[in-house]
Amino acid sequence: MALIVQKYGGTSVGTVERISHVADKVKAARERGDDIVVVVSAMSGETNRLVGLASEICTRPEPRELDVLLSTGEQVTIALLTMALETRGCAARSYTGGQVHIRTDDAHNKARIMAINAERVRQDLAAGRVVVVAGFQGVDDNGNITTLGRGGSDTTAVALAAELQADECQIYTDVDGVYTTDPRVVPEARRLNSITFEEMLEMSSLGAKVLQIRSVEFASKYNVKLRVLSSFKEGGGTLIQAEDDSMEQAVISGIAFNRDEAKLTILGVPDQPGIAARIISPVAGAGIEIDMIVQNIAEDSSTDFTFTVHRNDYDRAMDILPGIANELGAREVNGDDKIVKISLVGVGMRSHAGIASTMFDTLAAEGINIRMISTSEIKISVVVDEKYLELAVRALHSAFDLEQASA
Amino acid sequence: MALIVQKYGGTSVGTVERISHVADKVKAARERGDDIVVVVSAMSGETNRLVGLASEICTRPEPRELDVLLSTGEQVTIALLTMALETRGCAARSYTGGQVHIRTDDAHNKARIMAINAERVRQDLAAGRVVVVAGFQGVDDNGNITTLGRGGSDTTAVALAAELQADECQIYTDVDGVYTTDPRVVPEARRLNSITFEEMLEMSSLGAKVLQIRSVEFASKYNVKLRVLSSFKEGGGTLIQAEDDSMEQAVISGIAFNRDEAKLTILGVPDQPGIAARIISPVAGAGIEIDMIVQNIAEDSSTDFTFTVHRNDYDRAMDILPGIANELGAREVNGDDKIVKISLVGVGMRSHAGIASTMFDTLAAEGINIRMISTSEIKISVVVDEKYLELAVRALHSAFDLEQASA
Repeated sequence: MALIVQKYGGTSVGTVERISHVADKVKAARERGDDIVVVVSAMSGETNRLVGLASEICTRPEPRELDVLLSTGEQVTIALLTMALETRGCAARSYTGGQVHIRTDDAHNKARIMAINAERVRQDLAAGRVVVVAGFQGVDDNGNITTLGRGGSDTTAVALAAELQADECQIYTDVDGVYTTDPRVVPEARRLNSITFEEMLEMSSLGAKVLQIRSVEFASKYNVKLRVLSSFKEGGGTLIQAEDDSMEQAVISGIAFNRDEAKLTILGVPDQPGIAARIISPVAGAGIEIDMIVQNIAEDSSTDFTFTVHRNDYDRAMDILPGIANELGAREVNGDDKIVKISLVGVGMRSHAGIASTMFDTLAAEGINIRMISTSEIKISVVVDEKYLELAVRALHSAFDLEQASA
Repeated sequence: MALIVQKYGGTSVGTVERISHVADKVKAARERGDDIVVVVSAMSGETNRLVGLASEICTRPEPRELDVLLSTGEQVTIALLTMALETRGCAARSYTGGQVHIRTDDAHNKARIMAINAERVRQDLAAGRVVVVAGFQGVDDNGNITTLGRGGSDTTAVALAAELQADECQIYTDVDGVYTTDPRVVPEARRLNSITFEEMLEMSSLGAKVLQIRSVEFASKYNVKLRVLSSFKEGGGTLIQAEDDSMEQAVISGIAFNRDEAKLTILGVPDQPGIAARIISPVAGAGIEIDMIVQNIAEDSSTDFTFTVHRNDYDRAMDILPGIANELGAREVNGDDKIVKISLVGVGMRSHAGIASTMFDTLAAEGINIRMISTSEIKISVVVDEKYLELAVRALHSAFDLEQASA
């Protein structure tokens, strides 16, 4: 008998019919003999409806009160799901974040979980009940309602799984697992049976938005086995766990990509200490998030400095840069918002030489020019012209045999 | 500086615009220098929407979970109203029933308030904040969310006023006070400046549905001054308080009536002890509420026994009665569902003779036949044919000079 924490997101509980479907799934899991804790989000659309009401009242809602408002969304779902379980003869009980003592700091709208006292949950499990917990919410030390920010339900599920030492934390969503790359780009893309926490972090931060990064970090920290599955389709999903020896055979787990990039370059920057900070600080100070940063070795006494930003921030960054270039005595500023980033991700990369050269050879064979390169221990990223995205991803997917079953 | 508890019902907070309007009123009251605690209901329609969701899930929702669901309605309102106050520069803070420790028994869906720990409310008031509390809800000793049943927000307001020893508990609603009778029947009906708790109880149980009976009983028990006012119209409303000497001049405070009555009679019942119980028990046992009961003195060795029920229950009661009559050896059963009850209410009745005779003379002068009479210390009720309702109420309103300012 295992203890499983299941989490169902907003789409999975988006209608009364879907909540009933989730109740069927939970009941079936319970009848297989496992203890089940369910974490749910607000019904899809509900959070937006509530935010809409608040924005009719005032332009900037008081953060404490916004949490009081938004936390009702999950509270509705826990009640409905528990009713659905009870009416199916499956004993169940619902709890708000406050009722199961999910203690957070007092940073309203983006609180972090500090501790969970799951005594009450344990009692209910021992009594044979399914426990249904509202995701995304907690209480601070003064009993004020807090929310964890969007996507926080995943974090609630992982935190509960860690506290309860659950055997697995299953995240039910509208995709049936983590794929080698986006199946819309590469029809041969294959669902991975398992992936490491580190790979998942690289994959999700690079655009494969299956899980919230925070929940993966949390799961990694407390070594909670995470599984991503579909609410709507049967299947084993993808297990995300700490690296073990059996995984070594897979060199590359997947190919992530990001369409929404833009790059900016300052050419002919005097090669002096502190230059990078003088370029980046004003950009970051304007609230623009910077993704990749690449600086080439200096020719003569000057260097070229390139970084990428979200495409939406391109124009603002381009407004700031000429002033900086002028101050630094740089030669020229240019940029391009028609670029994409493609990344190979895999823990096997660490122990296998030649990954980078296969990657570059493959792209060269297709006549694709690489505009930037950046690497980390388990990732190689390249920036190429937007028009080459599909061609590049398909060629790489094939070159690394990702369509074949492995992992 | 006074401490005022204000309660706004569902219609008063039914839209974002109305919540903003309530915020304006609360802010104005605060700026007059009073300490203000506001109790709110769910936005009108919200409770029905939630009940609708539950009924899509199952036919008989688990009572505990129904409370978890329904309590979100008021939670949305407290958040929105508090935001509206804050954005107007009026410091405020919202609390759910659980957060201000409104302890109830564990009778879900119809819980009763046992105690309130208003320490946190006092602290906020001392800090100059308006306190906004969710009506209708509390928590039991195990921290489970409970609701007080429909209309429970009035009770929350009165209980808070009692605990805080507030100077007044103001119930804002869609009528601007308690009237001598229904202005739709008698255009000359006058708003009462004040009325006693006992009169209010008789008026409200008789059909003038301004306040929930429970909240009036509660206010009477803890001697909380209640005031009924309109959310939409300026005016002093009606103050409901304990009887004092200054009220003696008003003999009759008002005329209540009830259109939804039906009467049933068993004729020729043997006049023996225990007969009344043998008639009433099976009817009550079928879940039918009985209003008036009248039994005349016996002629010979038999008597006639009459009672009234809600018109909706007439057919069911009529199905039960012949069996009882048969058992008792009664002569005949008859009934009439085209009747109404009209009641004069007034504490002054106790010290003034002749009220009843004026009432009967007035009805006789209009040719209205009285079918039943029942009296209590501060009330005389008669049953007449439905068609006479308007005529009878107008004649009595005039006969007792209710259109003239007094009270």
